[in-house]
Amino acid sequence: MKKIYSIAIHGGAGAISKNVSVRDKDMYLAALTDILFYGNGLLRDGRSAIDTVELVVNRFEDCELFNAGKGAVFNSEGKIELDAAVMDGRDRSCGAVTCVTRIKNPVTLARMVMESSPHILLCGKGAEQFAKEHGMKFVRNSYFFTRKRYDQWLMLKDRGNTALDHSSGLMNSTKGTVGCVVKDIYGDLAAATSTGGMTNKKYGRIGDTPIIGAGTFADNSTCAVSCTGTGEEFMRTVAAYEIHALMKYKKIPLQQALDHFTANILKADTGGLIAVDSKGNHAYSFNSKGMYRGAAGSYGFFEVKIWE
Amino acid sequence: MKKIYSIAIHGGAGAISKNVSVRDKDMYLAALTDILFYGNGLLRDGRSAIDTVELVVNRFEDCELFNAGKGAVFNSEGKIELDAAVMDGRDRSCGAVTCVTRIKNPVTLARMVMESSPHILLCGKGAEQFAKEHGMKFVRNSYFFTRKRYDQWLMLKDRGNTALDHSSGLMNSTKGTVGCVVKDIYGDLAAATSTGGMTNKKYGRIGDTPIIGAGTFADNSTCAVSCTGTGEEFMRTVAAYEIHALMKYKKIPLQQALDHFTANILKADTGGLIAVDSKGNHAYSFNSKGMYRGAAGSYGFFEVKIWE
Repeated sequence: MKKIYSIAIHGGAGAISKNVSVRDKDMYLAALTDILFYGNGLLRDGRSAIDTVELVVNRFEDCELFNAGKGAVFNSEGKIELDAAVMDGRDRSCGAVTCVTRIKNPVTLARMVMESSPHILLCGKGAEQFAKEHGMKFVRNSYFFTRKRYDQWLMLKDRGNTALDHSSGLMNSTKGTVGCVVKDIYGDLAAATSTGGMTNKKYGRIGDTPIIGAGTFADNSTCAVSCTGTGEEFMRTVAAYEIHALMKYKKIPLQQALDHFTANILKADTGGLIAVDSKGNHAYSFNSKGMYRGAAGSYGFFEVKIWE
Repeated sequence: MKKIYSIAIHGGAGAISKNVSVRDKDMYLAALTDILFYGNGLLRDGRSAIDTVELVVNRFEDCELFNAGKGAVFNSEGKIELDAAVMDGRDRSCGAVTCVTRIKNPVTLARMVMESSPHILLCGKGAEQFAKEHGMKFVRNSYFFTRKRYDQWLMLKDRGNTALDHSSGLMNSTKGTVGCVVKDIYGDLAAATSTGGMTNKKYGRIGDTPIIGAGTFADNSTCAVSCTGTGEEFMRTVAAYEIHALMKYKKIPLQQALDHFTANILKADTGGLIAVDSKGNHAYSFNSKGMYRGAAGSYGFFEVKIWE
């Protein structure tokens, strides 16, 4: 019997302008293609769902183009604060970190929290203390410095505004959350999400990314989901878990559940989400102008897209 | 037509020993009675749901007997860290704070976040900066010092253990999360939860209390819910939102939804939850030994309880 596997990725959603150079567009599509190809290969080679989502999100975190890890945006103090979460659909094991500043790959720390602590969500200095005790490699906060992000922050800082990575006119310099959801050849699901948050965010604001059920969720019986966009709307709607509930209790298929959610539940122009189900289907849906995304799998499908 | 209102409160759940003096038992029942009487009166007098849950939880926060505000437990560094959340069932407005150390009434700050910021969840020093800018009164961390909590922390500290307020043998000195859910005479629902977390907790651990959908949720179309117990299990199960989903998509009545949840979904000996629905029913359910709780309403019912 053919082994079924499936993967979907996103690199953020928002008001992504189409008025962009071919070179920039191709750069993003190439990065998405590269990361999707990598993840698809891991699954084909028999890597577990939980390994795959972590490794794929690590790639996003190491890429300057996306708002996570290396490419993260600056908060109001000109610093980087990172959030990430991971969830294993087999038993709903999960881990997450928020407001960490010196961790190169926050999603790997989230997995460490999942596997080596009785807790789910660790915050700030406490999370970094945990990381240190568990032998995680630290980077200086300056590792995350990129010219583009800095210029973008300078633009917003004095106005007191916040911005998602790619709101109005900031295309090219900013790109939201990143995430990956997969079904592996053993039938297991997993989801992971990682972000640098909103440019110029204040007050230790925590978004949906590290919140299990909001930005990230996985359960083998239904689906694995990762969200991106204006975090507060995904928190208010308990977005990722709502997809699970629609499938489990209303018996709505994956793509329909996502479409219903972005059309009727999520506030307009908020963002989008990606998902896979236990049958190996993938789906994405968004109500913003665009979403960096891709999907592939054992059925030979391979696609990367930015707009409709 | 008679105006229907309904309120339920909790002061924590866990392995509450029955081997306790009549004096101690009466002290808790008297505190619960007092707080419930106060909240019931507010509703009868026409206060809104959102006002009532805040004011009732303020009373809990100011009472030394419960693990929230004044009575909060110590973390591993011998300090107090407080979390709270509030949600308005009319439009799902919500606000929450986590890891604040100098705020007398965290649930009031959570409401300020809901009403005066575009965000939902603010953390630590950032949350306190927001509080300061909005004129909130601060207390010194020493305000929260109580002999009982300190002794309890000393007991656990060297063992490296964490404890919910009333795990094994700690009855009398410790009492978990507090919460309140109501339906007001205008038909609106609201929920609020506040906590000092787990004694001797480390690493900036965040539990379910400030997580919308996990420890706290309200939606006029279904129910308002507040949870208490081992936070991680309520996060993994997205507990409060699961009750909403069971009611909305499976059409299961309130009490049945809670009972199904604590019997079949929530891990054994984890804790419990309280809820009211849009018809004015109240419900509680728990799978721990006990839960400090009470319920009252326009139908003349008034009850406070600790065990079954």
